[in-house]
Amino acid sequence: MLSLASAPPLWLRDNCPCSGCRNPRNGQKLFQITELPAALAVGSVQDTTTADGDPAREVVWAPDGHRSVYPDAWLDAHLPGTALAPGDGRTEDDKDLWDVAGLTGRGFPEADWAAYTTDDAVRAAALDSVLRLGFVLLRGVPVRDRQVLDVARTFGYVRETNYGPLFEVRVEADPNNLAFTGARITPHTDNPYRDPVPTLQLLHCLTNAAQGGDSGLVDGFHAASLLRAEDPEAYRILTRVPVPFAFADDRTELRAHRPLIGTDPAGRIREIRFNNRSIGTLHQPADVLDAFYAAYRRFGELLLRSELQLDFRLTPGDCLVFDNTRLLHARTAFAESGDRHLQGAYADIDGLASTLAVLRRKESTA
Amino acid sequence: MLSLASAPPLWLRDNCPCSGCRNPRNGQKLFQITELPAALAVGSVQDTTTADGDPAREVVWAPDGHRSVYPDAWLDAHLPGTALAPGDGRTEDDKDLWDVAGLTGRGFPEADWAAYTTDDAVRAAALDSVLRLGFVLLRGVPVRDRQVLDVARTFGYVRETNYGPLFEVRVEADPNNLAFTGARITPHTDNPYRDPVPTLQLLHCLTNAAQGGDSGLVDGFHAASLLRAEDPEAYRILTRVPVPFAFADDRTELRAHRPLIGTDPAGRIREIRFNNRSIGTLHQPADVLDAFYAAYRRFGELLLRSELQLDFRLTPGDCLVFDNTRLLHARTAFAESGDRHLQGAYADIDGLASTLAVLRRKESTA
Repeated sequence: MLSLASAPPLWLRDNCPCSGCRNPRNGQKLFQITELPAALAVGSVQDTTTADGDPAREVVWAPDGHRSVYPDAWLDAHLPGTALAPGDGRTEDDKDLWDVAGLTGRGFPEADWAAYTTDDAVRAAALDSVLRLGFVLLRGVPVRDRQVLDVARTFGYVRETNYGPLFEVRVEADPNNLAFTGARITPHTDNPYRDPVPTLQLLHCLTNAAQGGDSGLVDGFHAASLLRAEDPEAYRILTRVPVPFAFADDRTELRAHRPLIGTDPAGRIREIRFNNRSIGTLHQPADVLDAFYAAYRRFGELLLRSELQLDFRLTPGDCLVFDNTRLLHARTAFAESGDRHLQGAYADIDGLASTLAVLRRKESTA
Repeated sequence: MLSLASAPPLWLRDNCPCSGCRNPRNGQKLFQITELPAALAVGSVQDTTTADGDPAREVVWAPDGHRSVYPDAWLDAHLPGTALAPGDGRTEDDKDLWDVAGLTGRGFPEADWAAYTTDDAVRAAALDSVLRLGFVLLRGVPVRDRQVLDVARTFGYVRETNYGPLFEVRVEADPNNLAFTGARITPHTDNPYRDPVPTLQLLHCLTNAAQGGDSGLVDGFHAASLLRAEDPEAYRILTRVPVPFAFADDRTELRAHRPLIGTDPAGRIREIRFNNRSIGTLHQPADVLDAFYAAYRRFGELLLRSELQLDFRLTPGDCLVFDNTRLLHARTAFAESGDRHLQGAYADIDGLASTLAVLRRKESTA
């Protein structure tokens, strides 16, 4: 028999599922926490059944006499002490961390565009890869100008920035960013000077005929967890010291002060920002600067370990979708005389997770 | 005479301004922290002048012989111990916190649309109000369908969500959100179940002929700072306990686990999420739930204090622009028989801050 004795009254009442307390359609609460009686207490409890005939407990509340019916299944899953707190899918706890060997063992996460757009199961598996592994490679995407925006719209919403709704990754005559040259780019996250940072990035390959220009991905959550194991003090510093990221050109002046390794209040890894190009001048006491720079270099070296970087080559029709708060991406240098053209766009991972959750609802009722 | 003795070598070298180390156009760094010599040290220092004739110090580095020229003015402003760390404009340190009396004393932040769109100084002052006070009211905005999107584009980029590029705030026959009824809505932030949460909201009034439907704003940073002063333990709990926010309808299923009061690694208030309608079931030990609910109720009561809530009425042509990570907004109930129609949109504050910074650049060179 379930006991409600351990349940804090305000918590239990706040979870009352009756239609007076919650909108049945969307679950939105219809009362304020401040509207509940100050001396709220469980008056009486008795066994009952829900409208569907499932076993439940009915609570009559003191002093206001409100009645709440809690299905036993809900109490089993939610009473304090009976369940672990599920995450929201965004911290290391909800991810499958990987290095090259581990990823190779489970197979490269990829999907064919034709199947992805017609088969919900294929689409769900692809979106799940982005949440679990941090990326998916869509193959056979039409090689068409602005197609990358249509790819984003299959799971969410484009995040427009000062670079436009999409950006061209190719050699430009007057580049405002190193990305728009043929230079090698080491593993980094994009736009750390933006807050909110774009949580997803898409890179759609239209042409890749240049010598060089191969791609690489590193799991930043895995790298940060290695740093935590190998050098806890360096890890601690990188989670605490705000780094002034900045970007400026003729039309733009962005800045955000965030640690290289962002953690949630429970200390779990939640966000990586790593981009040497846009780190401005840190203002800290000399001892903090010494410690920060030693830790920053150590993390930078760790991120270059070959066993962490997955190397591959984008071919026309490939569209890489990845978590920009977790994965670092890199590319080798390429000959500027060669033809290499990607179109990129930003989007957000909450929309992707929503699309996946709705697909799974359909699966479970199919 | 400036001494470089206190400057950590890696920090100083990382700030080398030469064109080999930084792209002169956008300030992007052209080297990796891992590429610097392991035993980096200042070899010699001597007085010099910059190309512009300003006094400077030249460092010759050991062991690689690289030369860096640091203007004395830069060293004055940046050497450890000589300067306070500036913020990125997003925490309580960079805000003017307010209650009704304080705000009334300095005047309601508003701007006329015609002046806003033609006079850079008016626009800069309006955008500065959003950063400093959390909001500005634009008056005389054309009463035109979708105009709210054009307002957003004057300072940034629209953030499209499952509600669309814009959303209609009016009574709907089949509402998926309490906002789309005539019900009273107490102070709250929008979309706490989204991560990244939209950092700006716009509400453009097309019609407000209904009985009721007045607007209110509360400075959540100020309220949180009051809670910290009055009940430090309640404040501490609200910064630590992740709250599972959720929203679901037929096409959407969003969730984000974040504390009600978000702080940066230095403990400064940075983000408020407060919306009773979308708080799901917390999974925590009973003692944590007891403490959380007591603190949540206390903060909720504090947010309802009349001296904190600025009341006003939107009239057709008004467009309110506010920081959704800081300000809570509210409205009184209105008669559903009356005609009240707002159009809302989300955008992001980093784009607004960039637009303001570029406007100020023009001012300073004018």
